[in-house]
Amino acid sequence: MAKFESKIKTIEWVDNCSKMVDQTKFPYEFKYVEIKTGDEMYDAIKTMIVRGAPAIGIAGAHGVVLYALELEKQNLSFSDFKNELLKKADYIVTSRPTAVNLYWAVEKQKNIIKNCATDIKTLIEDLKSNGKKLELEDIEINKKIGDYGAEVVPKGATILTHCNAGALATVGYGTALGVVRSAFANDPTIQVFADETRPRQQGARITTLELVMDGIPVTLITDGMCSYFMKKGMIDMVCVGADRIAANGDAANKIGTYTVAIAAKYHNIPFYVAAPLSTIDTSIKTGDEIIIEERSHDEVTTINGKKICADGVNIINPGFDVTPHELISGIITEKGILRPDYTKSIAKLFE
Amino acid sequence: MAKFESKIKTIEWVDNCSKMVDQTKFPYEFKYVEIKTGDEMYDAIKTMIVRGAPAIGIAGAHGVVLYALELEKQNLSFSDFKNELLKKADYIVTSRPTAVNLYWAVEKQKNIIKNCATDIKTLIEDLKSNGKKLELEDIEINKKIGDYGAEVVPKGATILTHCNAGALATVGYGTALGVVRSAFANDPTIQVFADETRPRQQGARITTLELVMDGIPVTLITDGMCSYFMKKGMIDMVCVGADRIAANGDAANKIGTYTVAIAAKYHNIPFYVAAPLSTIDTSIKTGDEIIIEERSHDEVTTINGKKICADGVNIINPGFDVTPHELISGIITEKGILRPDYTKSIAKLFE
Repeated sequence: MAKFESKIKTIEWVDNCSKMVDQTKFPYEFKYVEIKTGDEMYDAIKTMIVRGAPAIGIAGAHGVVLYALELEKQNLSFSDFKNELLKKADYIVTSRPTAVNLYWAVEKQKNIIKNCATDIKTLIEDLKSNGKKLELEDIEINKKIGDYGAEVVPKGATILTHCNAGALATVGYGTALGVVRSAFANDPTIQVFADETRPRQQGARITTLELVMDGIPVTLITDGMCSYFMKKGMIDMVCVGADRIAANGDAANKIGTYTVAIAAKYHNIPFYVAAPLSTIDTSIKTGDEIIIEERSHDEVTTINGKKICADGVNIINPGFDVTPHELISGIITEKGILRPDYTKSIAKLFE
Repeated sequence: MAKFESKIKTIEWVDNCSKMVDQTKFPYEFKYVEIKTGDEMYDAIKTMIVRGAPAIGIAGAHGVVLYALELEKQNLSFSDFKNELLKKADYIVTSRPTAVNLYWAVEKQKNIIKNCATDIKTLIEDLKSNGKKLELEDIEINKKIGDYGAEVVPKGATILTHCNAGALATVGYGTALGVVRSAFANDPTIQVFADETRPRQQGARITTLELVMDGIPVTLITDGMCSYFMKKGMIDMVCVGADRIAANGDAANKIGTYTVAIAAKYHNIPFYVAAPLSTIDTSIKTGDEIIIEERSHDEVTTINGKKICADGVNIINPGFDVTPHELISGIITEKGILRPDYTKSIAKLFE
């Protein structure tokens, strides 16, 4: 399985900096940028130069290393160095509140900081190694998610996805699009319908780009169209990513996902969430506890630098919504597909 | 009732031409254009310089007059003139297939052509008078729709609408936004949430503009957000227009409406369609018979002249979808609010 090789590497630690595809330039440019300081990484996450829950986890881990390299120059005591670095680690987590993977990856780095008893040089090497390990693990995890997910993709299926949970939302391969890639490797009649995903248009700008690059057929639709194609029998399955999953299976994902889930339910189309275990936050009971990021109003009012609405209009711009567990057919993880009752299946997995 | 006076006049017959707001220029310009030939009118409807089911009905009626004025110069016999004009009338109906109002208004002009027994000059005057009559009637009808609809708007309600069924989709006042205007006249705590309505963004470009012009509070949201706000209890009612309503109450409206209707049903929020009787096509039994216009792919791939997706992506761009009658709480007409069973309530109205 997972014979499909994607051409895309989204984020990688190279020569003491974090090299990443600049996702704000799609679909006009496929350009790599090098992030060289912790503050640059904070901004890169906040402005979505890097985005996608698993990818910003890695970005957070790299950010901790970048701060460590800066603090190293200040000739601090080992104890002060560790304390300062822990503060920086906590700061970088605040760059985006909804995706738990950022918190999860930074927490892994924080544990290394807290547990290191040798010296600054060793600690920095440990943090680098751990960042690299998380990178490699992410691709392996995605391939496992893809392979488990492929088992529930019907032959010749058209899979609707929302936003981008692809290679470009992860280190490579993707979660929801990892499922697509694994299915496509065995069945080249698989195809994708991609929701545009306003306001940031990740579906139009990113999902279409990475699928075209990998030769997987993709049809772009506007967000309101999903029900039209579902009713026509043209959608066999919905598969999306997630930014945080509660202990009961409620899943936060890009705004608009919840609407697609309701439409899928109405048409009896299976709706799957594909995400690594690091996306599951067992510390929260339900989706009601997930903090929803409120983003800039310009994202709604302006496209490509041009205003699309009248002056004087009000805007509310939630970046995410929560799909309640009862609308989710299964949660595809690297340990297999979780099924309802999620409270039980998730608890069992984290035992 | 209907004390609210809108500042907007969308289309009007003035000095032997049809003067209309150019709706392709919103929100950047509020500019009137003068349509002086029948072919110009055909293009104006097709390219959506004028849009909205009731407004394109009037445009069609004006188009017939414009063709009559051109044919008048050809010194045809009265019989040949009538035959040629009937052909032109049939041609103008083909400019857009989904909205029945265009067909309905042109059919009214065709009846005048067929029944006129005097001469060309008289016929042309009759067609002009009928065009003017339809214009004035449209505003009166909308005000009645508004008043009937206002009765079901809860106090202080937030009304979600999709696309633009406002003054700018009609001669003035509006259907769905006519309901808003009548409700607002009596209760200034009423407000509107406007779906952006991709691909053509009529909600962002047109609905926000006309509501801001008339001082009615409006919040712009992207199409995928509707369920998020419904779940939060921030939407009390959905009210949309329609382009064609079948004898069983199934209603074609701008693509994306069906998705909103499903979301409203899921959250137990009343979903109303506001439309004049001329939108009801009793010649078709169900929405399955409504022809859905397939529009240019550029509308999906390009915004403000800039491509928003990768090259090599497939596009399907249906201009409309059909909301099945079971999702519609009521159809607000100038004769009152129709309720299920629509097959019966519609049949009774057309007895």
